[in-house]
Amino acid sequence: MNFASDNAAPVAPEIMAAIVRANEGGALAYGNDAWTQRVERRFAEIFERDVAVFLVPTGTAANALAIAHCALPWGAVLCHAEAHITTDECGAPEFFGGGIKLVGLPGDGAKISAGTLERALKERQWGGPHHVSPVVVSLSQATEAGTIYRPDELRELADLAHRHGLVLHMDGARFANALARMNASPAEATWRAGVDVLSFGATKGGALAAEAIVFFDPARGSGMQDRRKRGGHLISKHRFVAAQIEAFLADDLWLRLARHGNVMADRLGEGLEQAGFVPIWPIEANEVFVVLPQKIIGRLKSEGASFYDWSAGSLPKQVKMASDGSLVRLVASFATAQHEVDRFVTIASGRN
Amino acid sequence: MNFASDNAAPVAPEIMAAIVRANEGGALAYGNDAWTQRVERRFAEIFERDVAVFLVPTGTAANALAIAHCALPWGAVLCHAEAHITTDECGAPEFFGGGIKLVGLPGDGAKISAGTLERALKERQWGGPHHVSPVVVSLSQATEAGTIYRPDELRELADLAHRHGLVLHMDGARFANALARMNASPAEATWRAGVDVLSFGATKGGALAAEAIVFFDPARGSGMQDRRKRGGHLISKHRFVAAQIEAFLADDLWLRLARHGNVMADRLGEGLEQAGFVPIWPIEANEVFVVLPQKIIGRLKSEGASFYDWSAGSLPKQVKMASDGSLVRLVASFATAQHEVDRFVTIASGRN
Amino acid sequence: MNFASDNAAPVAPEIMAAIVRANEGGALAYGNDAWTQRVERRFAEIFERDVAVFLVPTGTAANALAIAHCALPWGAVLCHAEAHITTDECGAPEFFGGGIKLVGLPGDGAKISAGTLERALKERQWGGPHHVSPVVVSLSQATEAGTIYRPDELRELADLAHRHGLVLHMDGARFANALARMNASPAEATWRAGVDVLSFGATKGGALAAEAIVFFDPARGSGMQDRRKRGGHLISKHRFVAAQIEAFLADDLWLRLARHGNVMADRLGEGLEQAGFVPIWPIEANEVFVVLPQKIIGRLKSEGASFYDWSAGSLPKQVKMASDGSLVRLVASFATAQHEVDRFVTIASGRN
Amino acid sequence: MNFASDNAAPVAPEIMAAIVRANEGGALAYGNDAWTQRVERRFAEIFERDVAVFLVPTGTAANALAIAHCALPWGAVLCHAEAHITTDECGAPEFFGGGIKLVGLPGDGAKISAGTLERALKERQWGGPHHVSPVVVSLSQATEAGTIYRPDELRELADLAHRHGLVLHMDGARFANALARMNASPAEATWRAGVDVLSFGATKGGALAAEAIVFFDPARGSGMQDRRKRGGHLISKHRFVAAQIEAFLADDLWLRLARHGNVMADRLGEGLEQAGFVPIWPIEANEVFVVLPQKIIGRLKSEGASFYDWSAGSLPKQVKMASDGSLVRLVASFATAQHEVDRFVTIASGRN
Repeated sequence: MNFASDNAAPVAPEIMAAIVRANEGGALAYGNDAWTQRVERRFAEIFERDVAVFLVPTGTAANALAIAHCALPWGAVLCHAEAHITTDECGAPEFFGGGIKLVGLPGDGAKISAGTLERALKERQWGGPHHVSPVVVSLSQATEAGTIYRPDELRELADLAHRHGLVLHMDGARFANALARMNASPAEATWRAGVDVLSFGATKGGALAAEAIVFFDPARGSGMQDRRKRGGHLISKHRFVAAQIEAFLADDLWLRLARHGNVMADRLGEGLEQAGFVPIWPIEANEVFVVLPQKIIGRLKSEGASFYDWSAGSLPKQVKMASDGSLVRLVASFATAQHEVDRFVTIASGRN
Repeated sequence: MNFASDNAAPVAPEIMAAIVRANEGGALAYGNDAWTQRVERRFAEIFERDVAVFLVPTGTAANALAIAHCALPWGAVLCHAEAHITTDECGAPEFFGGGIKLVGLPGDGAKISAGTLERALKERQWGGPHHVSPVVVSLSQATEAGTIYRPDELRELADLAHRHGLVLHMDGARFANALARMNASPAEATWRAGVDVLSFGATKGGALAAEAIVFFDPARGSGMQDRRKRGGHLISKHRFVAAQIEAFLADDLWLRLARHGNVMADRLGEGLEQAGFVPIWPIEANEVFVVLPQKIIGRLKSEGASFYDWSAGSLPKQVKMASDGSLVRLVASFATAQHEVDRFVTIASGRN
Repeated sequence: MNFASDNAAPVAPEIMAAIVRANEGGALAYGNDAWTQRVERRFAEIFERDVAVFLVPTGTAANALAIAHCALPWGAVLCHAEAHITTDECGAPEFFGGGIKLVGLPGDGAKISAGTLERALKERQWGGPHHVSPVVVSLSQATEAGTIYRPDELRELADLAHRHGLVLHMDGARFANALARMNASPAEATWRAGVDVLSFGATKGGALAAEAIVFFDPARGSGMQDRRKRGGHLISKHRFVAAQIEAFLADDLWLRLARHGNVMADRLGEGLEQAGFVPIWPIEANEVFVVLPQKIIGRLKSEGASFYDWSAGSLPKQVKMASDGSLVRLVASFATAQHEVDRFVTIASGRN
Repeated sequence: MNFASDNAAPVAPEIMAAIVRANEGGALAYGNDAWTQRVERRFAEIFERDVAVFLVPTGTAANALAIAHCALPWGAVLCHAEAHITTDECGAPEFFGGGIKLVGLPGDGAKISAGTLERALKERQWGGPHHVSPVVVSLSQATEAGTIYRPDELRELADLAHRHGLVLHMDGARFANALARMNASPAEATWRAGVDVLSFGATKGGALAAEAIVFFDPARGSGMQDRRKRGGHLISKHRFVAAQIEAFLADDLWLRLARHGNVMADRLGEGLEQAGFVPIWPIEANEVFVVLPQKIIGRLKSEGASFYDWSAGSLPKQVKMASDGSLVRLVASFATAQHEVDRFVTIASGRN
């Protein structure tokens, strides 16, 4: 019953098979190989336009490199106060950006609303020489609360960002989960809705260690090969990173894997709700947030369930947490088995 | 006939098998897994002392993080003028080090002599507030010319460095090749000879993407986990990096693979010498540098050989290069087949 | 009627005279002069202990250099959300600190309470590898709201900071104004209350361009001369910066100048209160914050008064601002004349 | 007999008078004052074109900010191996540039020839992802050897730089001395010869602490106000910096002061030559480099002369230094008196 993180999942068999298959003979290093070329073309197909693509081994690298590439050092990046980039990357964007500032905005369900963004742009002090200047809006898709931005929400935020000269970055560590939930194409969920640059996640979705930075305006990618190398993020035996992404993108594997995670999350959420534990936020990706009594948490853990507590500071104001309760995060993945979900629910329900 | 780079080689079968084996069930992310713990213990065994170990996906990351960790921002890193860290990493050490300065020293065969280091420390202007301060000596093992530092040479350089308060870093991207050539243990070739921190390379030696930063004084590693994360170099599904290193280190695989590369380089060098092309530097690791006539280069390439030209600027003064000649670098690896070597020599000899 | 900023004030005559006096003959550059030596001794006298002192030309330089010197790059600096360092220095601390993160805490009157600091240290996620680590608490003295920290408040905050291994930095751009208000010695208001490093301001207090970074533990200053030079903040004709500080500190000039500013602020506050405009925060230094009707603001400006609007976001919740009102900041300085204050009050009172 | 540095000189009386004059009443801070506006216009007049001007307190700040503004972080700055920016600024350009690399080129008399620059651009390895990319050529005017670049030399270097897409920066800490020697206008010695950005020095020439960054294409200055503030280099009581430059530029004071320094250097050089000590490089600005016997150096110092040894490493190969000799640098300034020069020569000649 592993609900700790989709990073704790193994590698999807199709992807592992592709890695093994790529291991034949020599191939030029540093991306000058056939796998990388095919992946670049594949991204263009999937997003229905020319793109500039840069593969890197971690999501933190993808986010930090992408944001730094779009931000002057005196720039501010507006993101949700709970965004992974500002809470969980140990200052990577600040480091890669030469000391940029991340400005956390409020919002229920870890989402920024257009109204909140507008107020921040209007009411805060911005601009040189005394104040930093807003340069990037970064949205997590899916968010840290497992919610998602729909294309029309993205469009509204993007228009606002663009009107103020800002670049719209999407941290898509769980982009596949978000997309699988929507009735939208990859293009509709990104550049057609105004996203300028995407950290396309594959690792949480089933890869070993592979992420892609996708610039929807290829010209914006100029210089990124230098920035990536200089960050130590150009993998030498590059074919093995490309092979992961290639397999991930083949035959919609990425969406099938994501859909499974989402379905497991739904089942988990429904089971818990029936047991009286109503999920805090709508289950839109592969995560469930719920308040459980300490006693039940203890029982679950003793039965081998793994999951993390989550900061109660993110709870909506109207939610009153019982003194013996804790907010927990439950993450499903492509590898989550239905029987794990069912057993978790059974234990939580006190039925075992 | 792939002699372009050991980065162009595939993954050693034993290592690939270990990756596949690691893909069973869940495992906590970010290094909190059994593979990582075993690797840490294994390094301690191999080096016969407690060490602090940090795994990263690239050699550039290992070097840049290790050097930055030992250098104040106003520090200078003394290295050979042709060292990979100063010529081929796109400024990564400078970036990670907050603007440190790399000072290139001369030396035949890409090696720094103790005399050269001593003169640099004595005769250059060092120290605040106007001048940067020397803080790190970085040596490549094996060097960019395929030569190696013997323990007594290291000892002399280390003593000098330590007397001046400098840290001795070793860029061991080809440490296994160097060690396989020496009659010395890992400990003798590193900390017993005065090396303080080692970038332990595995990728060129046969791994997919795995390097280790090894601090021989574990206390020196304090804070490195933050620096690594912040650099985007903490792999989330960490067991797969650890599994590579574990397999690399098991049953002396690393040394066997390295020895094969060295033997192939020897055979290549001897063959070329017999054909009248004397290698420029002693073949001490897995690289051969030789001046070949353009005509022969053309023939080799047309027959499918891949290799790179090398800057003639590094040639010793006494070597006069014919106007129709080019200096080339030939790299053997664990995957180099004897028939590739022999065919290369045959073509170069004009015997086919 | 200049109430815009104490930076808009001229140079105090005594300080200008000292600059002119210093202009005789040659003097070694970069601080190797008699003026600098005397200033260093003077600081030790004033603070009743050995200190390490570094003079710089701007307050932003003093703050950014001091904070960077006490913070690892993955460090977090806890300060009030309205602190000058986080709102008005265009990201200088982030830049000098290699990408550190400034974390803004709430608090009435721009002050951080010990309770707030404690909650932040306890409840937020801190520590590697995923989260930044708290390393510095920075307090403004006087604060951005013109309030001050008393020695016992400092002591409480310092104890808390030190228990968590944090350094206590004080942004003393208006330290003289704060001190002049207290019944405390410089030592009592700083290191005896737990302050570790002080940005000692002189420019706003009457100098031309001179600030001092004061480390109360001199060992902590090691390396700062390099950092200062590397930041471009080592003034070559250093005697002229030292001469400013020397005059500032002679015969308690700094406190006399500050006291005058404070008295003028008091008078202004009292006059406005009698006119029905109650200052928002206690007047503890040389600044008055008050809500004025737009009509009166217009009249004041048309009569030649200069002052700035202030963000209403900083108002205490219980203060309801009339729709035609604006929060304004009025700054007195050593150069403020009583008749300016009186005329301002007269106009604001509608009596002219 | 102060020949140690033009930084050891006092402030020119006209400039000190201007500082004192500026000290009347209030003036808006941060450059929003009449002095600053007049200085900006004055620079446009002097250079006969629109320029973007930013005043800063030190030459290191001017150089580091200017270079960082023209360089991507993976950029290389080509300069003479003895250039102040690479030897005497403690890594400031590297710091401000986010880890740029300074590449030192050889050249007699501390000058880079077009041939040397061309070879460096052609023969070194440049360009991503593995190598840094050349982005700036920086020339010192006058050079560290007291020599100067004539407009035609600048033109040739600039054309070469521009053909390769590089920006031409001039470190003009002693620009006035160089210009005073030439038969050229400020425009001819800078932008008409291809200089893109100038660190215009005033401090060594007679100011207290005032330098200007001058962008000859004003558009290139965009963002510099943020960079300057963020570097802590925006002086709050800005009128006092502007007043210095204004006085420096009024009535050709800057050229008159520089000419005096040059004349004194000439006289010193001639006197020493007659005494048998031939200056090493042509005296083109205000510096004399000469090898003196230790005995004479000792006598001069005991008689109160101050000057610095200079690294013999910079001596032309054909100069053989006697074993009892030292290379010394003698710097004249606007404040050097003829009797100081004459007395120095007399002692050096052994005639006293």
